[in-house]
Amino acid sequence: MRTQVAIIGGGPAGLLLSHLLHLQGIDSVVLESRDRGYVERRQRAGMLEQGTTDVLRESGVGERLDREGLVHHGLELRFGGAGHRVPLTDLTGRTVTVYAQTEIVKDLVAKRLADGGDVRFEAEVVGLDPAAPSVTFRDGGGTHTLDCDYIAGCDGFHGVSRPAVPGLRTFSREYPFAWLGVLADVPPSTEELIYANHDRGFALHSLRSPQVSRLYLQVAPDEDIADWSDARIWEELAARFATDDGWKLHEGPITDKSITPMRSFVAEPMRHDRLFLAGDAAHIVPPTGAKGLNLAVSDVIVLARALTERYATGSDALLDAYSSTCLRRVWRAEHFSYWMTTLLHVDPAADDFALRLQRSHLDYVASSEAAKASLAENYTGLPLG
Amino acid sequence: MRTQVAIIGGGPAGLLLSHLLHLQGIDSVVLESRDRGYVERRQRAGMLEQGTTDVLRESGVGERLDREGLVHHGLELRFGGAGHRVPLTDLTGRTVTVYAQTEIVKDLVAKRLADGGDVRFEAEVVGLDPAAPSVTFRDGGGTHTLDCDYIAGCDGFHGVSRPAVPGLRTFSREYPFAWLGVLADVPPSTEELIYANHDRGFALHSLRSPQVSRLYLQVAPDEDIADWSDARIWEELAARFATDDGWKLHEGPITDKSITPMRSFVAEPMRHDRLFLAGDAAHIVPPTGAKGLNLAVSDVIVLARALTERYATGSDALLDAYSSTCLRRVWRAEHFSYWMTTLLHVDPAADDFALRLQRSHLDYVASSEAAKASLAENYTGLPLG
Repeated sequence: MRTQVAIIGGGPAGLLLSHLLHLQGIDSVVLESRDRGYVERRQRAGMLEQGTTDVLRESGVGERLDREGLVHHGLELRFGGAGHRVPLTDLTGRTVTVYAQTEIVKDLVAKRLADGGDVRFEAEVVGLDPAAPSVTFRDGGGTHTLDCDYIAGCDGFHGVSRPAVPGLRTFSREYPFAWLGVLADVPPSTEELIYANHDRGFALHSLRSPQVSRLYLQVAPDEDIADWSDARIWEELAARFATDDGWKLHEGPITDKSITPMRSFVAEPMRHDRLFLAGDAAHIVPPTGAKGLNLAVSDVIVLARALTERYATGSDALLDAYSSTCLRRVWRAEHFSYWMTTLLHVDPAADDFALRLQRSHLDYVASSEAAKASLAENYTGLPLG
Repeated sequence: MRTQVAIIGGGPAGLLLSHLLHLQGIDSVVLESRDRGYVERRQRAGMLEQGTTDVLRESGVGERLDREGLVHHGLELRFGGAGHRVPLTDLTGRTVTVYAQTEIVKDLVAKRLADGGDVRFEAEVVGLDPAAPSVTFRDGGGTHTLDCDYIAGCDGFHGVSRPAVPGLRTFSREYPFAWLGVLADVPPSTEELIYANHDRGFALHSLRSPQVSRLYLQVAPDEDIADWSDARIWEELAARFATDDGWKLHEGPITDKSITPMRSFVAEPMRHDRLFLAGDAAHIVPPTGAKGLNLAVSDVIVLARALTERYATGSDALLDAYSSTCLRRVWRAEHFSYWMTTLLHVDPAADDFALRLQRSHLDYVASSEAAKASLAENYTGLPLG
């Protein structure tokens, strides 16, 4: 069995790469260990930078995104009982769009299959050789070897691709908190996202659609979800979002709740021989700032361009630059995500000096045009390297 | 003995307050424990925000400042072997001025004495009563009690004023490094200040005049100055300022060297009864960002305005707001100083993740107009609250 690019992982990174390569006449096979239903249902990110929506739209998979995506022009920082809007579009000329990762995956799977793409679900990679290069996988029909020119490791933080890179240097940070996230069948209480800092901890009011709210609470990293009844969740959310002028949080049935630990992680380099890592396989950001999915998309854009150049001209220049090109943007996003996380969360180990400094920092960001512009240009996404 | 405002401390804060009050017809007595020569010689800060030069000029003590001060329109961030200019004036419309604190003190002492002001050197305060209010001091002629309407505590971090405030809340942070500072009789190797981050630690190239360079090196907090020969200092400075294009540091005779610990400190509130704290008596910032003297000046401007209103109208409104008005600006400066310190220094405890994050942060500040504007507006001084 042979293809030009073997893609490990059928999440948004792997599927988008396969799609972008197809548009350039480059063949690929996507190997996804889970079944299609699982991949299309797993709840992940939902805030897209303009660069991400641009590439989806320009590559012909933006139809439903344009119809259902909610374009946002600002966000709110809320602390000290008051809200402060950051007018993202006024400050940067760019927008962000609420459109869940699950929907992008559905759109991409449908498009790949419609285009005759080779996307294999329940195909578990059991070995890969970055030098040959080849990928060995197991499916209902037995064990197979897929020979290829290049391998793209798009299989996430726990995937098999990263361990296949010898001598990786890794960088990481654990945070002393986690996010308890809920989906609720209730119209959002806000049109734009609210990032709240409160003595009791961080809270985020996001949304999935005009009918579905997505809400998050900072909790301890070892928090037991069983301790969080729906009533307790609503009470805590209401306390953290409370304003001096009586802002009201609408409650509704919670349809999903889970706790996600927060981590920063980077592996360098993002390439070994013919194997290229992209997305969560190479780096993780804490979710504050919504950079994870967008970073995976920008990796894939860079990789698709580099492979396109290679097949079109024979030049390895862009492939050789892949890791350093991506890592510049990765570290920018790592810094921004760390910055926004520490700006808004309550560190249980913070002393009084640190808490006062944090409050002064919040006051400053909310009042300075320069500071707001800095937040906005990072949030909406800096130009591709 | 009686006056309207008893001012403890004859540094720039106390002297400027006395001068500003005099212009409004308000009497004061300045009590300084050291002799005049000592006060006029002690090396301290030397970078003035525009708000600071404005008040000196507008109040009639800016003649020599205008003649000898060096107006700067930018600064340089240097890291990774290259320099990156932050065009302060282009970004903010404001300038900063190099003019040493010792010179401001000389100008203010001369002006107060010329105006018949009561500035007493070698007058050691041995007691104060914020309620009476009164100040007891000792000089060559014995022990005296100075009755007054208000007391201004401008006697620095180690002074007697702050301990006279009961129930103070204090906030502080020690840093795992200190500054080794030298004065050298050599024309500066740069027209604008250079803030350098290097694997070996932070370095700052500042200046006192077209003939005198002021240079700093990050060292360990327990560093012994005896271990730093002039040759070693020049060698280390040259290594930290080195650029890929061979920038040259000019060497010359070192006339002064000392090690200063770095600390952040804030006391709240800045008022108790009739006693008002100003400058280092209430707060300390690490020197990166040059906020200490400027913060003392802004405290004094706020206090002079409040006392002026009180004597002119009988209203306590501005005096009652003094502490909160000052503390907003104080915490902003505390945050900025902390930010600039951590951006540029090497924390010996930093892990690889923290070092990569710092480098990404530096790259960002050097490349983003918004980030540069944020640095510039803080560095040149935010408007008086």
